[in-house]
Amino acid sequence: MIIQELKDASAAHWRNSIPHISIDSVVFGFLNNQLNVLLLKIKKDDNWILPGGYLQKDEAVDDAAKRILYERSGADKIFLNNFGVFGNLNRSEEYFKDYPDDLWHKQRFITIGYYALVDHTQVNPQPDIFSDRCEWVPVDPIPEMVMDHEIILKKALDTLREHISHKPIGYSLLPETFTLPELQALYEAILGEKLNRGNFYRKIMRYDILIKLDEQRKGGAYKSPNLYKFDEEKYKIALSGLNW
Amino acid sequence: MIIQELKDASAAHWRNSIPHISIDSVVFGFLNNQLNVLLLKIKKDDNWILPGGYLQKDEAVDDAAKRILYERSGADKIFLNNFGVFGNLNRSEEYFKDYPDDLWHKQRFITIGYYALVDHTQVNPQPDIFSDRCEWVPVDPIPEMVMDHEIILKKALDTLREHISHKPIGYSLLPETFTLPELQALYEAILGEKLNRGNFYRKIMRYDILIKLDEQRKGGAYKSPNLYKFDEEKYKIALSGLNW
Repeated sequence: MIIQELKDASAAHWRNSIPHISIDSVVFGFLNNQLNVLLLKIKKDDNWILPGGYLQKDEAVDDAAKRILYERSGADKIFLNNFGVFGNLNRSEEYFKDYPDDLWHKQRFITIGYYALVDHTQVNPQPDIFSDRCEWVPVDPIPEMVMDHEIILKKALDTLREHISHKPIGYSLLPETFTLPELQALYEAILGEKLNRGNFYRKIMRYDILIKLDEQRKGGAYKSPNLYKFDEEKYKIALSGLNW
Repeated sequence: MIIQELKDASAAHWRNSIPHISIDSVVFGFLNNQLNVLLLKIKKDDNWILPGGYLQKDEAVDDAAKRILYERSGADKIFLNNFGVFGNLNRSEEYFKDYPDDLWHKQRFITIGYYALVDHTQVNPQPDIFSDRCEWVPVDPIPEMVMDHEIILKKALDTLREHISHKPIGYSLLPETFTLPELQALYEAILGEKLNRGNFYRKIMRYDILIKLDEQRKGGAYKSPNLYKFDEEKYKIALSGLNW
C-alpha cells in the first residue's frame, strides 16, 4: 500500500534529510519533433508529478539535484539550471492533508526548481516507489499535474524560452550530429512558434558555434542534408557571453 | 553584547521561522555614476554582509523577501528577482562555529538570493540589531564580505548584466525623468564597460519604451538635454517579450 511506503520513506527522511526543503526537476527532451518533459504518474492519482526529492543533511543542493535526476533517468551528464524557488503557503500541504501528522511529506515544503536539457536517447526513465510510470509527455498542452507543479513547469518553460533566445543552449537536447532544419525544428518546438528560416540561420551562424562536417544525412529527400555538430569550446564562450 | 542579542533573536526565530532557510538580498542602486549595493557592517566584524533574514512559518518566500527589504530600506515598491539558491555545505556554519549549539544561526542554512533595483533617493538604509552601519557600497571592486556573500553578490551582478542585455530593466534604478546620456551611464555602470553611443541609442529606441518630454535638463552645458521617462505600459510588454 502507498501509505505504508510513505511511512517507511518518512522515517528515513526524518533521519537523513533537511526538513522543509524539496527539489523538483523539469527535465526537457526533444522527441517526435516536440518538446517533452519527463514526468511520473503516482499510483493513487491520475495526475502527473515532477520527479523530485529531498536534500540530504550532508549534501550540497546542486549535488542533490544531480542525484535525484540520476535516480530517475540514469543520466549523469546533464545541463542543470536552477530557475526558481516555489515557496507559497499551502503549495504542497493540501495534497497530504489526510495523512498522519508526523509524516515527513506533510510538512510545509519550499521547493527548489531545476530544469535539465537531455538527449532523450541517453535517458532510461525509472519510476520511484510511489509511481508506476515514468514517461516523456509533450509540454503542449501543459499536462494536468498535482500541487503547483503546472506552475513550476510553466516557469521552467518560460525560462528555457528566454535562455534559448539569448544563448545557444540547445546543445544537450540533440544527438551529436544534426542538420540545420533539425536544429530549427528544435528551436520551434521550444518556442512554440514557426521561425523564419533565413533569420534563424543567420542568428545561429552569428553565434559561431557550429562545425560543418564532411558527412551528409543519408536516405530520404533532404533539402539541407549537411550535418553539423556543436563546437564545444566556442559553445562555452558563447554561453558565458553577453550580447549587448 | 552581540552574543546576548543573538541569543534573544535565536529564541524568537526558533518559535516563528522555518529552519534551514534564509533569504539574502542584493539591493542595487545607482549613485555617483556607479553601481552600488546596500550592505551592512556587523559590529564585531570588519567585513560587509548582505541584508538578509528568515522565512516566517506563515509567510510566502516572496513576501519574506519583500518584508526583509522593507525593514532595511523602507522601500516597498521594489523590482525583486530571485536569481539563485546557495546551498553548499559549510557555506555559513563556519562563521558561527564558536557560538552555543542551540543557537538558531548555527544551523545549516540554504539561502535564497533576491536582487532588487531601487532608486536610491527612495531608500532610507537602516542597520539591524547586529550591525552599526547600513550603507551604499560600490560593486567595483567587489567589497570584502562574510561567508559566501561575495559569491552571492557576483551571481546577482552576472544575472543583472544578463537581464539588462535583453530586457529594459533599468527603469527602477533611475529617477522618474532622465536624459539619454544619463541612461547610457547607468548601463555602462552595470555592464562595467563603455558603450558605443550610436549603438546604445539604437538599441534603446528599438525597445520603444521611452517617452520624450517637452522639458529639457536645465543648467550646465548638456549636449543632449532632452528629458525622457519610461512608458510603463510598453515597458511591461517589453519585459515579458522574447527577442528571438
